[in-house]
This record gives sequence, C-alpha cells and structure tokens, in this order.
Amino acid sequence: MHRARFYTLIASCPDQVGIIARVTGFIAEHKGWILESSFHADDLDGRYFMRIEVKADSLPLHLAEFRSRFQPLADKLQMDWRINDSAVKKRVVVLVSKQEHCLYDLLARWQSKELDIEIACVISNHDTFRGFVEWHGIPFHHVPVPVDNKAAAYAEVQRLFEEVHGDTMVLARYMQILSPELCAAYPGRILNIHHSFLPSFVGAKPYHQAYTRGVKLIGATCHYVTEALDQGPIIEQDVIRIDHSDSVEDMVRYGKDIEKTVLARGLRYHLEDRVLVHGNKTVVFR
Amino acid sequence: MHRARFYTLIASCPDQVGIIARVTGFIAEHKGWILESSFHADDLDGRYFMRIEVKADSLPLHLAEFRSRFQPLADKLQMDWRINDSAVKKRVVVLVSKQEHCLYDLLARWQSKELDIEIACVISNHDTFRGFVEWHGIPFHHVPVPVDNKAAAYAEVQRLFEEVHGDTMVLARYMQILSPELCAAYPGRILNIHHSFLPSFVGAKPYHQAYTRGVKLIGATCHYVTEALDQGPIIEQDVIRIDHSDSVEDMVRYGKDIEKTVLARGLRYHLEDRVLVHGNKTVVFR
Amino acid sequence: MHRARFYTLIASCPDQVGIIARVTGFIAEHKGWILESSFHADDLDGRYFMRIEVKADSLPLHLAEFRSRFQPLADKLQMDWRINDSAVKKRVVVLVSKQEHCLYDLLARWQSKELDIEIACVISNHDTFRGFVEWHGIPFHHVPVPVDNKAAAYAEVQRLFEEVHGDTMVLARYMQILSPELCAAYPGRILNIHHSFLPSFVGAKPYHQAYTRGVKLIGATCHYVTEALDQGPIIEQDVIRIDHSDSVEDMVRYGKDIEKTVLARGLRYHLEDRVLVHGNKTVVFR
Amino acid sequence: MHRARFYTLIASCPDQVGIIARVTGFIAEHKGWILESSFHADDLDGRYFMRIEVKADSLPLHLAEFRSRFQPLADKLQMDWRINDSAVKKRVVVLVSKQEHCLYDLLARWQSKELDIEIACVISNHDTFRGFVEWHGIPFHHVPVPVDNKAAAYAEVQRLFEEVHGDTMVLARYMQILSPELCAAYPGRILNIHHSFLPSFVGAKPYHQAYTRGVKLIGATCHYVTEALDQGPIIEQDVIRIDHSDSVEDMVRYGKDIEKTVLARGLRYHLEDRVLVHGNKTVVFR
Repeated sequence: MHRARFYTLIASCPDQVGIIARVTGFIAEHKGWILESSFHADDLDGRYFMRIEVKADSLPLHLAEFRSRFQPLADKLQMDWRINDSAVKKRVVVLVSKQEHCLYDLLARWQSKELDIEIACVISNHDTFRGFVEWHGIPFHHVPVPVDNKAAAYAEVQRLFEEVHGDTMVLARYMQILSPELCAAYPGRILNIHHSFLPSFVGAKPYHQAYTRGVKLIGATCHYVTEALDQGPIIEQDVIRIDHSDSVEDMVRYGKDIEKTVLARGLRYHLEDRVLVHGNKTVVFR
Repeated sequence: MHRARFYTLIASCPDQVGIIARVTGFIAEHKGWILESSFHADDLDGRYFMRIEVKADSLPLHLAEFRSRFQPLADKLQMDWRINDSAVKKRVVVLVSKQEHCLYDLLARWQSKELDIEIACVISNHDTFRGFVEWHGIPFHHVPVPVDNKAAAYAEVQRLFEEVHGDTMVLARYMQILSPELCAAYPGRILNIHHSFLPSFVGAKPYHQAYTRGVKLIGATCHYVTEALDQGPIIEQDVIRIDHSDSVEDMVRYGKDIEKTVLARGLRYHLEDRVLVHGNKTVVFR
Repeated sequence: MHRARFYTLIASCPDQVGIIARVTGFIAEHKGWILESSFHADDLDGRYFMRIEVKADSLPLHLAEFRSRFQPLADKLQMDWRINDSAVKKRVVVLVSKQEHCLYDLLARWQSKELDIEIACVISNHDTFRGFVEWHGIPFHHVPVPVDNKAAAYAEVQRLFEEVHGDTMVLARYMQILSPELCAAYPGRILNIHHSFLPSFVGAKPYHQAYTRGVKLIGATCHYVTEALDQGPIIEQDVIRIDHSDSVEDMVRYGKDIEKTVLARGLRYHLEDRVLVHGNKTVVFR
Repeated sequence: MHRARFYTLIASCPDQVGIIARVTGFIAEHKGWILESSFHADDLDGRYFMRIEVKADSLPLHLAEFRSRFQPLADKLQMDWRINDSAVKKRVVVLVSKQEHCLYDLLARWQSKELDIEIACVISNHDTFRGFVEWHGIPFHHVPVPVDNKAAAYAEVQRLFEEVHGDTMVLARYMQILSPELCAAYPGRILNIHHSFLPSFVGAKPYHQAYTRGVKLIGATCHYVTEALDQGPIIEQDVIRIDHSDSVEDMVRYGKDIEKTVLARGLRYHLEDRVLVHGNKTVVFR
C-alpha cells in the first residue's frame, strides 16, 4: 500500500531475452522510482507478463508524455499494455438483487476508503436497497428485468453504465444472467461472484447441489463474466468447511461470508490493475 | 438451522454414569422432540457439558413449567443450567468507535435476519456513525470517554445497557478498555474482538507487533471480556496469510476481514447458546 | 483420544421421540460410562444417527452379551447398528502404485501408533516398494494389472484381502480403477484418495484439468469407492492455494501434501467408526 | 519448477533508482534468459531485495566468470549477493530425536526427488531410527546429549556437519536446544520446526500451553535458529483448527501434520534460495 501517487504499468508480450532490462531501463532513464514490480513467464505459450508501480513524482513527465515515449519500445516488444494513475479513481457500477451481504460489505469498504473508488451508481432489479444506497449519497436505479423483455432491461443497464462513464461493473449477487451483448461489450470489465467453488456446481442453486453431493467444503468464485455461464476467467476463490449437520440454509449463511470476502478481494485485485487476462485464465500479481 | 420454535437447554454438572439417560429420559417422558444435541466430558476435571434443542410444540408444557419440573433432576445432578426460547429475541448492545467494518457487517446480518436479534442500541465514544445507525431505526448514544473521567463514561454505558434490558454487549472494535466494574458486572455477557491471534500480541497495536516479529499469518480472536486485558475465555479465532510484501497498513486491511467474520461467528455461537464457559476456556457446541 | 479400552456403538434408525433416552438408558442400566457421544438427525429424510463410546471396564458384560441384550431394543427402533472393541485392531490392506507420499505417510503413522492398526499387507501393481515395505515387517505382494487381464488381477487382490481377513482396503494413490465386482464386494470398506476437490475434475489428470481451468485452489478428496468412478460418498476433503506461477508439476507437488493428509484423516475417521454412510453421503462424527 | 539447469541470483542492497534495470541489463547483455524474477522494496529501511533465475545454457559464461564480471556492479550497488547453480545439490544434515513424522516425511520427499538434495547424514541423540535411515543408504550417527556434557555433544554434531561439508542443518523435531556456539557458527543455515504458532507458546510443551489457554487453532513455525530460543527469523507458519473436545494428545497428533508440512515448505524455500534474512525477519520469494 503506497499513499503517494503512483503509476501502474501493466503489460504482456511474447517472451524474449531482455524484456525486463529494456522496460525497467526505460523507466530508470526517466528517473522513475519503482515501488513494486512483478513478472511472470508462461512457459507453455511463451508469453510474458508484468506489472510495475512507479512513484509519480519521481518522473519528470506527465502520463500522456510517458505513453508516447514508451510506445516505440512497446511496439518493438509487440506489447499489449496500459498505464494507470492512482490519482484517477475508477468508476464502479454495482448491480444487486435482494441480498445485502455483498452490498453492505462493498459500501463499508468504500466508506472507509479501503476501496478508493467512485461508486458511480447502484442498479437493481428490485427497489429494496434504494433507501440504503441513497443514504450513502450514491444514485440508485431500479431496472426491473421482466422475463419477457430482458433485452430492454440490459440495454438500460448498458445505457446507465455508459452515462456514468463506468470503468467496472460488479455483479454483487445480482442473480440475473446478463445478455450475451452486454457480456461482449465489456470483456474483462464485468466481475461476478458465483456462490460455488467453480467448476463445481455451475448454474442455479449451487448450495443445493453441494448439499446433495455431500461435499465437506463449500466455496465461492470471483470471475470475469463472459457469454458462457460461469465459465469466465477466475480471479479469486476460497472455501469454508461444513459438515453433515449443516443444512442448505446453513450453507447459504456460511457461503455469504466467503462470497463477500472473495468478491472484495477479486475486485481489489482488478481495481489495482493486478489482474491480466490470459486466454480463459488470469495472472494475478498480488 | 431450525425455523420452528425450539427451546435450548444448556447445562454442566459433575460427570457420572447416566447423565444423558436421565436428562433425555426426562425430555422423552414429556414427549419432547430433540432436534440437536451435543455432549462433552472434560476428562481432566470430570465436568460434563450438554446442549439440547427441543422442538417447542412437541412439549405439552410451557417453559416455566418445564423449569420447575426439571429443577429436582438438576438438583440431583448438581447442575448449572438454563433453558432459552428461540422465540424470545436476545437484546444486543453494540459498542463501536470509528471503524466501520464490524458495524456494517453486524447490521447487514441483522437486516437479513441472519442474526435474529434486537439491536437495542449502539453506543460510541464518537458521533461518527449516528446517521448510519439511526437510518436503520436503531437508537444511537454518543458517550465520550474522556481520559480524566472514564468512570463516569462506563457508568453511563452500564446505565444504558440496563435501561434497554440488554442481554449481551458486543465490543465491535470499541478500542477502549472497559472498567473492571463493568467487566465484573456481566461475566460471560460481554464479547470483544481482538485484532490478533491471542495469546500473541496482547494489548495495543497488535498489527505493528506482528509486523515487527515477521509472522506469516495474522489473526483475530473473539473472547469474553474479563478484568484481565485480552485474557478472557476464547470463543473463536481465525487467521489469514500475509507475506513480506505486506505493510502494517496491508495487515490492518486484511485483518478487518478476519475480525468481522470471527466476531460474527463468535457472537452467533453465543446468541444460540452454543458457548459454555469453563474456567478460562469455552466449550463451543457448533 | 482415550487410552483405556472402550466399545464404540454406531447406529442409525428412523427418527422418533426418545431414541437417545432409550439407548443411553440401556447403557446406564448396565453402568456403562459414556466417554464420547454424538447424535445427528437428518431433517430431510427423518433418519437418526448416533455414535457412543463406552468405557469397557465400566460394563459388567462382554461384548457378545451386550450385543444379545441390546438387540431387542435395536429391533424396536428398527436400527442398523454395530459395536466395536477398541482392543481389536482393524486389519488394513494398502494398495499402492509408484508414488511414495501416501505410503510413507501411512507407515509413519502406523510406526508411531498414531494409527493403531494391523497393516495386513501391501499390494502393488509395481515391485517398487517391496524393500521398503518388507523392511517394516509387512508382507508385500506384487500383483501386476495387465491391460488385457485386469479381471484376474483384481481377483487376486480380492483373494489376498480375504486371505488376511482384511477389514479395510486403502487405495493410497493406486492409480488403477477397481473392477465393479471388487467395488460391490466391499461397500463402505474401500477408501480412495482422489487428487482433486470433487466433484471438480473427475477422472484422469485432475491437476492438468485444474491448470487448464485456471482455478486458484486445488484439493483432494477421500471417499468410499463405488462402481461409479469418483462418485462415492465423500469422507473428507481439503484444498491448498495456488496461483498463476504454479505449473502442473508444482500443483502435483502441492497436491501430494493435501492428498496424504486428507487420506490419513479420512482413514482415521473410518477406522474409529466415526463415519456412517447415508445414501451417497456420509455422517462424520469428528 | 524448471527441469533445465539454472542459476539463482539472490541479492539485497540499499534502494535507489535503476537497480532492476542495471542488474537485468547485465544479464541481458550476456544473453541470459530469465525464468523467474522477484523484487521487493522494504519501505521502512530502504533496502531492496531480489531473486532471479537465469537459464544456465542461455549464458555463454561459467558461474565463476559470471561472478567476477558481476562483482563490479554489485560493488557499485553495495550489494550482498550470491549465485547458486541448480545442478549442485545442497548437502543437508538432519537432526532427529524419537519422533518419526518429520523424518519419514523428509525421506519420502527425498526419495521421490521432490527435494533434490543430498542428505549427507542423519544425527540423533537416540539410536531409534538407525535401521530406517541406513536402509535408505544414508549414514546415521548416534550422538547422545548427556545433561552434564552437552558441550561435547554439540562439538561432535559440528564436527560431523563439517566433515560432510553440510550446507544446511535441519532440526526435524530434535527436541534439544543447541549451544550458542553452534547457533552462532551457522547463521541462516540451521532450520528448526517449533510446534506452536510463534510467538505464542515459546519453549517447552507448547501444546499443553495451548490446551491451558483454550485457543481454537494450533500451529507450527519453521524458523532459523539463533541463540535466542524460538526467537529466530520466521520462514513459514501454518495452523489447524481444534475445539474443546481435543485433548493434549489430540493436539499433538494434529500438530504433527502441520509440523511436517511447514518444515518441508520452509526447507524447500530455503534450499531453492527463496529466503533472504532481513534483521530478524525474512523475505520469502515463493
């Protein structure tokens, strides 16, 4: 955790000799002070990943100038890259249904500045949490998702997301399956919390599935949403122990504690630019 | 988890042949349907512990009558015992300071009825959370704790607790050391969450202590408050992994997730009459 | 852990009022001192489960006499039941292939008397561990499993198991799929350790499957073997955290630590009569 | 895990702009292919740590030449550094007493080449494991530690360690407190496994201490041995859940599973040059 302003460079490229030397050499030439750096080589497909935090006031150039000067090197390395400024707060849109545990948890983290973000708005298919959300000074939108006209509902969600210039959409137990169009519009920008340890128990009622199978641990999975239900790249997972005495209701209750924690961790990694999507997997530089 | 109303019998007594038979025999004679039952013998000091849930409508007698009929058997067994009715909500008083994670967490559990209690009031040495608490329809009392007159402050806390007929007092990161008088007044009824894995790092700034010692896991402990600081009977503990890259601030952040979860679990065990204090230890029938 | 000799009664029956009272009443009438007792009601199908440890020398009757006197009560309660004597060591047959981690682990526990059993023999489809096993004074049988004549191999395994009067068969990373006949012959008596957190990654190469899916935790499952591959009742499971930097080989290595621990825990529960099979699930009284 | 031969550079130095660039620049100039690299800045005292794996056959120079060419840069950066060759197996001396769990565990890992080391010899104050160790083809030395002449015993341990050119000494539940001389002779080269979650329960009988305090988790700690008992830099720790029903004997048994796993992980980190001692703490690049 660094209180001082910093820039975060995230990049991937084909592996070759000298990548770190050239990238950190570029930063050193500009007197950039590296706070944190992580590197990973995928041996199987020869791709290289990196994340570097540079203290903002150590660099004598603005981000725009950094970007234009760095581009030639990035081109030579055939790099996918971006650089973000810690002073620019990410704009998050939260989608909820009728369960409060993830919503309360996210708002507490936002209140305490643990999550240093803007919550641009909360969208829900129910009006349940309007008062709670608005009390926090956050706009709330009730967008019902009628069975016979989901398309219109998701179009409205997308319109609201665009209107507030959302960076990230968080499905905080939204309990609705987004349209393929919406999924495709924001790859790597929509996070979901699924209430099972994927790939076990895909789809509806995972705790019932877990109860029936008689597993001894239950879990939760934070993943990027793709068109394939519960199949997107996994960011974070965790589990909790149960036993034969736990009913489905007990499992639901235990599960909530895992869900909100896993969602918060996954969201934090995402917002701090610690996650690089690699095919259907993720590199997470914790 | 049982939706139907039930009575919970909690008891301990010197161990001897036939305790379970006599107690469950008494219940069976009255047609009592046992939902859940747990027994434990402490081999070292020969004390016996039990917890039995009986379906309320299976018994043809009211709790008062049960109590008077059961007393002779309890006397014969030299039993410490009590029986509670799941339909009578416990009255909880929450004490907080300026950190929100435990407060938000408890209120979310209360809102969703996961914790099926009355929150009689919230007391704080700061006015920070008045709005948030009152929005939930819960009375909020600002009771400053001045360095030179703590006694008066704790007397006021006690007065408020008595006034609302509080059953349980929860120090949800209250950050103040209660007076010995207050501790002594409510043995086994005041729960604290300490932000370390006790007995490591007693007292102030445990995360700083943990950082200095270089431990690889940090933890939290929910315990009953006694006059000896951080020495009371432990109800629940948990830990989370850290590493060399984590600053004290990171540890504080990680720690919050453990603190609120451990407090909620410990409180739940307490409220469901699953905790029996035994010397400076606890029997927890999960 | 009780050093003194004891009997363990394990039973299940349809739920009704008074089961505990009648069973523990029977024991109390015979002056039986109960060391440990556990009860569980399955709310969904109304079945009741129990496990009771009685100090052997507190009872004035031998096990055979206990059995005959208890039978009428068991009949009235329509009970499936058995009672075992802690002084009679269980006879375990271990099946291994070419990986040593589970074998070394089990033999260390047997050497230190942590597992107080007879290892009747070790059977393997390879001759790799003959010297190691025989050094411990345990008979070793090399039973190759040729692709074109597995039936004969499994018949030989069964013959050896019968010959040594085996109680329990342990597949300690045996890496072979037993014949349906063998599975059917010993329901609830053959334990396997599967190297995934079932139901994820059934079948071959689960670590490769886990790598491909990009999960953030890997696990192991100890279960009873049934004819349906990796579908039997689960006794115990656990997981360990991995990340993007871990190759399949790393996962295999981490996994071994989980496999041997989970197998040892599951086996211990089984040998101590703590596991009751209930449909395709288990009740495990820890 | 890399099958191909590689060199591991481990270093620390005062933090300044350009360290990574200069070190990786040096490697890139020599065509060194970096397999894995980790960096860490300690914000409090401004020290910088790194670990870099370079594929051996990518470098056109031998290790001796690498060392002499790199030294001028290391001098400029005021670096503490070393570079090791994965093809040179570390020589480990294991000290045991009468408990087998860690010994069996280490030998299983050595047999399977999970730990790719030489076990130069095993030293014990008892003769218990001579047969087992020698069966593995490893020299065994019985060095009694009489209460009235411990100095001579530790002198003999040191003589044996020197004689076999030991790199690392592992106290695998040795149950003896080494002399200050021996501790001082090999800083950062003697690993111990302590059977508690330090700093809780320092010294003798930690499980008894844990039982008395009524903790809900017990643990184990792998640390470097220093003259201050159980106070050395911590490499790895873990915990396991217990409850009121667990006796001291149960805790000892559970504890063994944690002890051997934590020791094996800590030893592996040490042997793979993933641990840098920093004051009384460690940087562990996993």
